[in-house]
Amino acid sequence: MSSTSDRPLTPEDYWQLLVENLAPQRLGTEVVSLADSHGRTLADDAHATFSVPPFDNSAMDGFAVRGADFGDDAGHDDGPWEFAVVADIAAGHTPTARGDVEGTAREEVGQLPPAARIMTGAPMPAWADAVVPVEDTDAPRGASAAPRTVTVHRAPKPGANVRLAGEDIAAEDLVVSAGSVISARTASTLAAIGYGEVEVVTRPRVAVLATGAELAAPGEQLSPGMIPDSNSTLLALLVREAGGQAVLARTTGDTAADFGAALPTDVDLIVTSGGVSMGAFDPVKEYGLAHGWTFEKVAMQPGKPQGHGMAGSVPVIALPGNPVSVAVSFRLFVRPFIGRLLGQPDSLASTTRMARAGPAWRSSPGRRQYLPGALLPGGSTVRSSANENLVDEGSTHGDSTAGGSTDGDGYDVVVPVHRLGSGSHLAASLHAAQVLAVVDAEVTEVKPGDLVQIIPL
Amino acid sequence: MSSTSDRPLTPEDYWQLLVENLAPQRLGTEVVSLADSHGRTLADDAHATFSVPPFDNSAMDGFAVRGADFGDDAGHDDGPWEFAVVADIAAGHTPTARGDVEGTAREEVGQLPPAARIMTGAPMPAWADAVVPVEDTDAPRGASAAPRTVTVHRAPKPGANVRLAGEDIAAEDLVVSAGSVISARTASTLAAIGYGEVEVVTRPRVAVLATGAELAAPGEQLSPGMIPDSNSTLLALLVREAGGQAVLARTTGDTAADFGAALPTDVDLIVTSGGVSMGAFDPVKEYGLAHGWTFEKVAMQPGKPQGHGMAGSVPVIALPGNPVSVAVSFRLFVRPFIGRLLGQPDSLASTTRMARAGPAWRSSPGRRQYLPGALLPGGSTVRSSANENLVDEGSTHGDSTAGGSTDGDGYDVVVPVHRLGSGSHLAASLHAAQVLAVVDAEVTEVKPGDLVQIIPL
Repeated sequence: MSSTSDRPLTPEDYWQLLVENLAPQRLGTEVVSLADSHGRTLADDAHATFSVPPFDNSAMDGFAVRGADFGDDAGHDDGPWEFAVVADIAAGHTPTARGDVEGTAREEVGQLPPAARIMTGAPMPAWADAVVPVEDTDAPRGASAAPRTVTVHRAPKPGANVRLAGEDIAAEDLVVSAGSVISARTASTLAAIGYGEVEVVTRPRVAVLATGAELAAPGEQLSPGMIPDSNSTLLALLVREAGGQAVLARTTGDTAADFGAALPTDVDLIVTSGGVSMGAFDPVKEYGLAHGWTFEKVAMQPGKPQGHGMAGSVPVIALPGNPVSVAVSFRLFVRPFIGRLLGQPDSLASTTRMARAGPAWRSSPGRRQYLPGALLPGGSTVRSSANENLVDEGSTHGDSTAGGSTDGDGYDVVVPVHRLGSGSHLAASLHAAQVLAVVDAEVTEVKPGDLVQIIPL
Repeated sequence: MSSTSDRPLTPEDYWQLLVENLAPQRLGTEVVSLADSHGRTLADDAHATFSVPPFDNSAMDGFAVRGADFGDDAGHDDGPWEFAVVADIAAGHTPTARGDVEGTAREEVGQLPPAARIMTGAPMPAWADAVVPVEDTDAPRGASAAPRTVTVHRAPKPGANVRLAGEDIAAEDLVVSAGSVISARTASTLAAIGYGEVEVVTRPRVAVLATGAELAAPGEQLSPGMIPDSNSTLLALLVREAGGQAVLARTTGDTAADFGAALPTDVDLIVTSGGVSMGAFDPVKEYGLAHGWTFEKVAMQPGKPQGHGMAGSVPVIALPGNPVSVAVSFRLFVRPFIGRLLGQPDSLASTTRMARAGPAWRSSPGRRQYLPGALLPGGSTVRSSANENLVDEGSTHGDSTAGGSTDGDGYDVVVPVHRLGSGSHLAASLHAAQVLAVVDAEVTEVKPGDLVQIIPL
């Protein structure tokens, strides 16, 4: 483990250091039903266990026919053409096993070519190659017995309204990659390709531990000098959003020994907030320095002081204590770390998007800023109140019309959620943030209309 | 309830009809702890119960001082200036109750002005108005006893490093609006403004019922003519994503009577898939028509046949049976309906975004297309295989560089998730869809670079 240094690091440098020192490994797996798979991470590549669809089937309610029986009239309506209805095929039934139309025999209908009444999704008879929708025939719509003969008003194009076996996906094709987070639509795809249950990565157990003698439990009456502990709630629910299982840990005192005693051993990761700065009462740093942990100043704002180390066999990520710092640090370091435990691909790079700055704002020199922002559709007009940290220069870049316009140049507009910008203590506006706007370390003032990178929260 | 008609409706017309006929009302409420509030919908506006921060406090570890003691030297480093350390204030402690530096008395330090050692987040002494960071003094960093005197190398600007009471939010200000879905960050904000528990809207109980004799349970061996039931999984998990609680209902047979018997009574909503078209075995439509339900052809693709009605006191939304139709119909009609039950603001209009078409694709005339698509960053180059439904015309609009580029004009690029476009049966590619690309009814071919509206899934 590298030792503490005073050299500021970029967030990327720090992430590399964290990964090298803590060496996150993918956890074990378990098998769950699709109904229980929501939000879980797929352990292995999922391949189609059969072709989808598994057999040629009808895309419409109508009549399966042979295109050749229309001669050269495909797609025309020079009919009518008459057919003998030789079968009645509902979805879920095999074309030969059931559904023959009672009493219809070839001899009764003379020289008429064959048609089969067929419902959407029902398997095509082997001899048929197109389906005429019921609307293009004289047959009754809806619940009714199949007619003995049917008159077609419009000849189908070759292959019309037939879904071919395997046209969605071929058997054994890779469909969903290992490391994917399972959404409702993913689970539905997994069902469609033959899965009833799936192997997923175990949910990481993450202990969260907010430190600070000034913290009162949420909702508790505040004594003088106390503030509510919003970090425990924030961290626990961010862990949940990241696919982990949060375990609240509590610290009972101010000292490094108290902190050490509160570190659990039966978890996959510990995340702490507070106590990593250069104060006289920073128990996390005091404990960590005595146990070989790494503390760094990262060239970012908020979130400059960061730490990490091992508590026995459990990795610990020690975040600063201000709520906005916690949210930003979690997004940059903890969420991808939990992603590693889940075997997810690192995604920060792939989420790179740009937006235009709405109002102007300032940024600390020498530190990359991560400013909590809300997004408006491009072309929106934004006004803000003038403030020490947020320079009011009026409307945004582009065609300015009130909210909801898409007359801009395609870029969304990012607006700081608080007039004080990226102040690390601004807990009460965190709910409004949709993204972090990223401002390079050398930039000290963002002007309206400037392009900035945004990271979705 | 309006009667069945053959006039095609726009999706907006149909939504209005659905809301008029089914009259969704917000459900009751319950009180939950913040830890259990994730994903729930806030029942009432949440106002700050006190100012945030509740008191003036230090933004740094350092020394609280009076700016006036530096004369006209604010912000300069023409010092040094020496101070008597008269108090030691840790976070969570009141400035007067504890922490006076032992043995430091005014007479001992002669004419020196006062300073108080102070930690980040600790309350400012009433007499002080600025904080000098410990880095700008001769005092030791980290765990140490407070010194008796301190030498300051750099005079602070007026008010420097002080967070004023209420600068984040004022007491009684509206912070989070009723109808908001509670994220980790929202819960953290609620904690910060004084909440320990919150009143949320009851989770709607939604029964999902996939009909179709061709449906086998997910993972089950398929008999000829059968396909896996992916809709039950899709609907149940989409209900969950929408904030509801899914209850699986099962239908045991093919008939309208079987369907009617399977409709539960102890839920807030029933969503069915399949059986609403014009086939001979469409039990939902047969049952519904006998019970005064409304069936319409909506001018959209996929998802044209739609139905709804009341089963006793329970609203029923009857979706078509193809998986892509289910996903699209759910997004347009069921999700906002559940949103009404939860008291959420209607959000479809506010999610309007535009993207550029990657490859070309075709759309049915007379029906608005909702094409499942994936998003790439603007400027990406997209190639697709030529196909009946997807016209390959090479690269996208804008500066073309390979994936991840942001050199475009700010619009993301939308790419169909399947070479067959918006075919309603394409279940196996649904997992890859991030958005629905919306193509106006009168447009039959989308060209590369065309701007299309996108709806996030």
